[in-house]
Amino acid sequence: MIIGTVVGSVFSTRKSEKLIGNKFMIVRPEASMKASGNDLVAIDIIGAGIGEKVLVAQGSAARVGCDMENAPVDAAIVGILDEGQEID
Amino acid sequence: MIIGTVVGSVFSTRKSEKLIGNKFMIVRPEASMKASGNDLVAIDIIGAGIGEKVLVAQGSAARVGCDMENAPVDAAIVGILDEGQEID
Amino acid sequence: MIIGTVVGSVFSTRKSEKLIGNKFMIVRPEASMKASGNDLVAIDIIGAGIGEKVLVAQGSAARVGCDMENAPVDAAIVGILDEGQEID
Amino acid sequence: MIIGTVVGSVFSTRKSEKLIGNKFMIVRPEASMKASGNDLVAIDIIGAGIGEKVLVAQGSAARVGCDMENAPVDAAIVGILDEGQEID
Amino acid sequence: MIIGTVVGSVFSTRKSEKLIGNKFMIVRPEASMKASGNDLVAIDIIGAGIGEKVLVAQGSAARVGCDMENAPVDAAIVGILDEGQEID
Repeated sequence: MIIGTVVGSVFSTRKSEKLIGNKFMIVRPEASMKASGNDLVAIDIIGAGIGEKVLVAQGSAARVGCDMENAPVDAAIVGILDEGQEID
Repeated sequence: MIIGTVVGSVFSTRKSEKLIGNKFMIVRPEASMKASGNDLVAIDIIGAGIGEKVLVAQGSAARVGCDMENAPVDAAIVGILDEGQEID
Repeated sequence: MIIGTVVGSVFSTRKSEKLIGNKFMIVRPEASMKASGNDLVAIDIIGAGIGEKVLVAQGSAARVGCDMENAPVDAAIVGILDEGQEID
Repeated sequence: MIIGTVVGSVFSTRKSEKLIGNKFMIVRPEASMKASGNDLVAIDIIGAGIGEKVLVAQGSAARVGCDMENAPVDAAIVGILDEGQEID
Repeated sequence: MIIGTVVGSVFSTRKSEKLIGNKFMIVRPEASMKASGNDLVAIDIIGAGIGEKVLVAQGSAARVGCDMENAPVDAAIVGILDEGQEID
């Protein structure tokens, strides 16, 4: 997984029907993390807000591990970090 | 997922028979996104046009999530972004 | 998928028996494509020749989508681009 | 797999219920390794401590290979390197 | 797949029991290959020696294609290149 900060969200009205009901959050990986400098779009099964630091799982884990086995999803917010933790 | 812009398409007459009927769109990831600077080819299950900003799912999500479980597909356009949204 | 040019092939006599009968082609991704500057080795289910531009699928798509579900294959040429198309 | 050093851990109280009971370790890949310069977060099925060099498996291997097939996990510590080995 | 040279091996006594009996080889991708400059650790099902050029499959191919479906393995040596072949 990687740690990143939720920096925004995007809306898509015309999309796969399997994605209906999901929020698409833009996550910015921490500077020390894999993929830093490269935002990604993740669905959110936890309810994270803008500015929160989150754990993101990628690949088949996002689909299978979030009970969306048949949806075209390759990244998901699967945890919100407790506050006050230093990353780096 | 990543956000990119559809910049073109390519044609392939000699291809896996499991790919027949699909359009191959060239998607250019946004500058802030993972894989920026590196185009990729995605099938399109939504009907995106050149210049539209889209959500692209990669890996097994493109296959399993787009009802093409047995096709050699590793990237798919799964949503078109609503207009007027700032990315970055 | 990515677009690349077939630049060569390699031979391996001592290999997984599940790979027997496959050709290993070296594909060089186009300059604009994801993974540009980094060749990869793909099996070829289409019959591409040196110098042809091809579509390459990576990951589980190469295995499952090419009827080689149980073979250790992570990249496959799945289409040959029609001639005369501009990439970039 | 890659080799890295455990440099810390993070806590997440609000997370997928499938992740309850797991420790989230921050692993820093060795300088010579794939993904060097980019930390990642891995669950730990072995019991590694801060400063130990570990083997990390990524992708579906972390899920399926660690008996967590249905959890949103994409990286796992699957071995601790014996001491006194030179990497590089 | 990628082509690399076996440059060493590592030992891990404390590891997932599903990994018992496997050798962990350090493979250095060729300069022209994807992931060049970044070593990776692969299991070896062929019996490659230090200095040999090998084909490495990554991702689920390493697990499923090497009859280790339930092991936490994400890279495997699946072929040894015949000698005398120019790569690059």
